[in-house]
Amino acid sequence: MSSTEERVAALEGLVAAQQERLRQMEDQQAIAQLIASYGPLVDAGEADRVAALWTEDGSYDVEDWHMADRAAVAAMVRSDAHQGLISRGSAHFLGPAHVSVDGDTAVAVCESVLVVQQERHPVVARIAANLFELARTPEGWRITRRTTRGLRGTREAHDLLAGRVPTD
Amino acid sequence: MSSTEERVAALEGLVAAQQERLRQMEDQQAIAQLIASYGPLVDAGEADRVAALWTEDGSYDVEDWHMADRAAVAAMVRSDAHQGLISRGSAHFLGPAHVSVDGDTAVAVCESVLVVQQERHPVVARIAANLFELARTPEGWRITRRTTRGLRGTREAHDLLAGRVPTD
Amino acid sequence: MSSTEERVAALEGLVAAQQERLRQMEDQQAIAQLIASYGPLVDAGEADRVAALWTEDGSYDVEDWHMADRAAVAAMVRSDAHQGLISRGSAHFLGPAHVSVDGDTAVAVCESVLVVQQERHPVVARIAANLFELARTPEGWRITRRTTRGLRGTREAHDLLAGRVPTD
Repeated sequence: MSSTEERVAALEGLVAAQQERLRQMEDQQAIAQLIASYGPLVDAGEADRVAALWTEDGSYDVEDWHMADRAAVAAMVRSDAHQGLISRGSAHFLGPAHVSVDGDTAVAVCESVLVVQQERHPVVARIAANLFELARTPEGWRITRRTTRGLRGTREAHDLLAGRVPTD
Repeated sequence: MSSTEERVAALEGLVAAQQERLRQMEDQQAIAQLIASYGPLVDAGEADRVAALWTEDGSYDVEDWHMADRAAVAAMVRSDAHQGLISRGSAHFLGPAHVSVDGDTAVAVCESVLVVQQERHPVVARIAANLFELARTPEGWRITRRTTRGLRGTREAHDLLAGRVPTD
Repeated sequence: MSSTEERVAALEGLVAAQQERLRQMEDQQAIAQLIASYGPLVDAGEADRVAALWTEDGSYDVEDWHMADRAAVAAMVRSDAHQGLISRGSAHFLGPAHVSVDGDTAVAVCESVLVVQQERHPVVARIAANLFELARTPEGWRITRRTTRGLRGTREAHDLLAGRVPTD
């Protein structure tokens, strides 16, 4: 049996390693949860809560609609176009995100399917590739940039799915 | 270097904090896994295993079908209506759940898409909002109440997506 | 207050239990992430990265297409059939996986929806049951066998959803 001193040193090593493993899992889980909340909130029309998923100057670039900050994201949710969707009934259905954390930033990728209620039954209106760039902030992980492109065979959409961050 | 006594006290503080962080992550993961098992089990027709996701008197309220306990949930899976769906082929496709734990209870939200096999190809039959209320039990987390509403622009469905627990 | 020796022994017990809990959560998370990466990678056409989700001799059995190893999985991604899909635009949309770990092997179940871009709008081309068998390898968790069957009311598809590993 080793001395008490040696046992304490061994514990200190184990606990330090556990701190790091916990942090990694918490980061993964927090980011996956942040992204999992997007669809429900945007389909509920919760403009401010959707916007709060981004950093203050976080951007959202979807096809030809570029939102440059939180205010623009909230304005999108309040827009006639989006309100029209949710008053008919819509599901911005995002799949489970694949998350890669690197220190205080992260990249997450998922596919999404937009289903919209029509007269007789729901219709798939769009399939898309989504790449989220995120940052650790004092309030937790937030989106710094989201890029979404319809899946129509373009290189750009395939790059997003492959996790390649767009260059400007 | 601090004394052995001081180092042990520091470790005790760290380990106690880790216990809490582990519990939080395990709760999140267990609830997400519970909900992820619903679709596969219900589409497999595993009536008893579906029912066992609920507490004994847990309820499931979907549109105008109110199930008041486990037995009623199992009966739904065994009903002609559900057996008709799964004999054609159905996917009760639930998205990743957003989970909020508060001590020994929790709320989880997700959207769902029901896709049913038709003669020529699968058809989206319904898009819905789902709010799960859950409790920690000796057997693990179980659903105490699930409320599901089709997404057709109603306030009720939007409230569920926003995480607002229905009042009776 | 107990002696320092007793406190160290108590910490050793707690930390050993935490090691096990951490390992369980990391396994769950790693497997869920592995499966979450399949859809984005296969729709991006990243043949080698898709294949690397499997062990070297891992197999993928989907309807009447049996791939016996990594090379066969990569060849499927590069095939005219798959390249035709992704050049139109496709979403191999997998739901959140339900994961059961048993030591160094695991089973995971999820449903999937294949949505393909057509001239006017996306169409749901297939709904399917997926059962993944996995192994812990020096490189992390990898798929040893994936079995996928269309959901058309067959016993075989229901067995997969119920988590019953196919016998050969």
